[in-house]
Amino acid sequence: MDPVEYSRKYGGKIQIIPKVPLKSYDDFAIIYTPGVAQVSKVIESDEDKSFELTSRGNTIAVLTNGTRVLGLGPIGPTAGLPVMEGKALLYKFLGGVDAVPLAVKAETTDEIVKIAEAIQPSFGGINLEDVESPMCFEVWEKLLERLKIPVWHDDQHGTAGAILAGLINAIKLTGKKKENAKVVLFGAGAANIRTAYVLIDYGFNPKNIILIDSKGPLYANREDVDKLMFTHKWKYDLAIKTNGENAITIEDAFKGADILVAASKPGPGTIDKHWIMQMNDKPITFLLANPVPEMMPDEAKEAGAYIIATGRSDFPNQVNNSLVFPAVFRGVLDSKSSKVDDQIVIAAAEELARQAEIKGISEDYILPRMDEWEVFIEEAASVADASARLGYARVKLSREEYREIAKQKIESSRKILNSIIPFIEKG
Amino acid sequence: MDPVEYSRKYGGKIQIIPKVPLKSYDDFAIIYTPGVAQVSKVIESDEDKSFELTSRGNTIAVLTNGTRVLGLGPIGPTAGLPVMEGKALLYKFLGGVDAVPLAVKAETTDEIVKIAEAIQPSFGGINLEDVESPMCFEVWEKLLERLKIPVWHDDQHGTAGAILAGLINAIKLTGKKKENAKVVLFGAGAANIRTAYVLIDYGFNPKNIILIDSKGPLYANREDVDKLMFTHKWKYDLAIKTNGENAITIEDAFKGADILVAASKPGPGTIDKHWIMQMNDKPITFLLANPVPEMMPDEAKEAGAYIIATGRSDFPNQVNNSLVFPAVFRGVLDSKSSKVDDQIVIAAAEELARQAEIKGISEDYILPRMDEWEVFIEEAASVADASARLGYARVKLSREEYREIAKQKIESSRKILNSIIPFIEKG
Repeated sequence: MDPVEYSRKYGGKIQIIPKVPLKSYDDFAIIYTPGVAQVSKVIESDEDKSFELTSRGNTIAVLTNGTRVLGLGPIGPTAGLPVMEGKALLYKFLGGVDAVPLAVKAETTDEIVKIAEAIQPSFGGINLEDVESPMCFEVWEKLLERLKIPVWHDDQHGTAGAILAGLINAIKLTGKKKENAKVVLFGAGAANIRTAYVLIDYGFNPKNIILIDSKGPLYANREDVDKLMFTHKWKYDLAIKTNGENAITIEDAFKGADILVAASKPGPGTIDKHWIMQMNDKPITFLLANPVPEMMPDEAKEAGAYIIATGRSDFPNQVNNSLVFPAVFRGVLDSKSSKVDDQIVIAAAEELARQAEIKGISEDYILPRMDEWEVFIEEAASVADASARLGYARVKLSREEYREIAKQKIESSRKILNSIIPFIEKG
Repeated sequence: MDPVEYSRKYGGKIQIIPKVPLKSYDDFAIIYTPGVAQVSKVIESDEDKSFELTSRGNTIAVLTNGTRVLGLGPIGPTAGLPVMEGKALLYKFLGGVDAVPLAVKAETTDEIVKIAEAIQPSFGGINLEDVESPMCFEVWEKLLERLKIPVWHDDQHGTAGAILAGLINAIKLTGKKKENAKVVLFGAGAANIRTAYVLIDYGFNPKNIILIDSKGPLYANREDVDKLMFTHKWKYDLAIKTNGENAITIEDAFKGADILVAASKPGPGTIDKHWIMQMNDKPITFLLANPVPEMMPDEAKEAGAYIIATGRSDFPNQVNNSLVFPAVFRGVLDSKSSKVDDQIVIAAAEELARQAEIKGISEDYILPRMDEWEVFIEEAASVADASARLGYARVKLSREEYREIAKQKIESSRKILNSIIPFIEKG
């Protein structure tokens, strides 16, 4: 069905319903006045009680200013709203998380930061979405510092998590080592900049990482580096830390590389076959542009790529943030966590990689697929467990206890969804 | 059940579910990427399409800064959240409206106005709730001017609407006339100040209205009136316009009054029996404080009150904003209206009064009861119809067409609610 007609038919995609057995107006004496005053008083004396006594404990905002929506660019918040609605449904369907689409008019970093601060009392977490780069880095860092709920920028953290999960198994299959693998990150937007930091935190050697933007490889003495200190301090920082060999041309960067992660612009033809041919034995190539990968998998194969991943579901090895964000928020909500950072991204990626390994990894299966939903329970448990270990959790339980909560929440969410479909179909 | 235990058991009261038949991950090709890009593009070229292509068309924000929550005062946004959740369920249960609780940190008028402006792209309307007076008037007026979606402050408009509806039938029963009835408004908070304006717009003579605050009746020469010009311009304005007889004491105000609307502080003993005894024949007394009316109904009766209304469901004639806000938003959403104002309040009140009259009014039945939900369909239709007549509606239909839409939306919402209860109860 045509997506526009579909949206018109149903009038959008989400609705709000009770999670209490609301049967008659009499129930409102507990749900609303006068009973609710008691709940308010308990929270007034201890704000953290809001996580257990209101829906806040299972609800996040999917917050965008519409400055970089999908591949469509700065189409604005109103036009970004249907994307946020779809994302909200992924949260519920895969993670049992209630997500409120919040597309807001906010042009500056300061404006979006202020909105996030203002709405904090209503949410257990915030998923930033489709905020342009480099604004997204500054927004996220400020919110990490100022808020006491987890803030996740999915275009950074979700993508970096899925990439790391895939790479963990890819290097296992190829016998490469994170400590000395040479990595080319092609494209320097939200995804690859966060991936650079996550890889470094995971144990890759920053000197062996080369980040390529539209001007070529970043290196400490590139003529625009001083300017980057003011216009894009994350590129500046990585220009200093990475590219130990001082590769100046793209060809130099690819020479002897073990891993390519392309998150740049749609192909075909964005990545040159000859570059792949310059890579080390058993090249690992992640070609993540959508809808068309930077180079098509068959072409990469011809050029010698050993492991090929894309962003698409119709090829093997789909690198998809949906493998990450629903379970991460399941885990941080269950542990009533105060933040997420690269350590949480790593915990999620390691569990995803482990789950694929348990089923048996191969060149065509380095990551779980989206329909293997039981994986999300394990991933959520490991994220909650990491949150407790790192001191971010308000509620400290064992991994097994977190796992039980995640299982119950994800399963009951699937039950509710299945139960209402017949009623939606009848109209 | 204890409301705190109840809230803990269910983890709050609301959840977000699909209104599309989401069955498998494959559906996301329409709901999310790549299909959703087409929907975004349509909205980018015409933002008003967001009302029909996203949930925005049926979704409002219940926005509070927690500065005056119930009778609890400035308990803050987090403690106000459970109240907003309860309100959200009333919206769905009675009006089929999806309402998102949004308790925000916003201390000044400017801050809450900015938040409302920022979130506009995500919502078809905003219900302001529990914002202190006089901030609430300034906030509402600014938003009326700046936003292109309806903004309703329920403590003003909802209460004023229910009051007017009750008064329309009360004066009918007593043979009084709006043009010359003398009205005492006891209490000068959000509810009674808005009621004063609504009564004037409806045709009551402002000279016959006396507003009483903690210092007694407001009149043009009261010693603090010049100061009010700066601290509370709505009281200032009413001090000039009302109280033509220049009543200075409370006793003077009640002398010969036909109508008392008390919306002040809980009784008993807030209103003196002797004041009621000073009123005209067949006094109409609305004693709206919660949980205890300003004077108990039996006492009012003894003092000679002919019609007695309260805010409570355990006495006859409950004046309850729940009779108003769900149907008003049903109507303004169905007509994709750009604003609400006192004219819309009046349209809702007139229809409510008419519905009670059709069933047969008496001293003990001047208003529909909450459980007479078919009333809300008629009220919504009349609100939508008024929106079209006043030029606020983006979608202009006949009253009968609006009525069909409201009927379908309210009925299907009730069906969904009934269908999910068994699954909630099973857990």
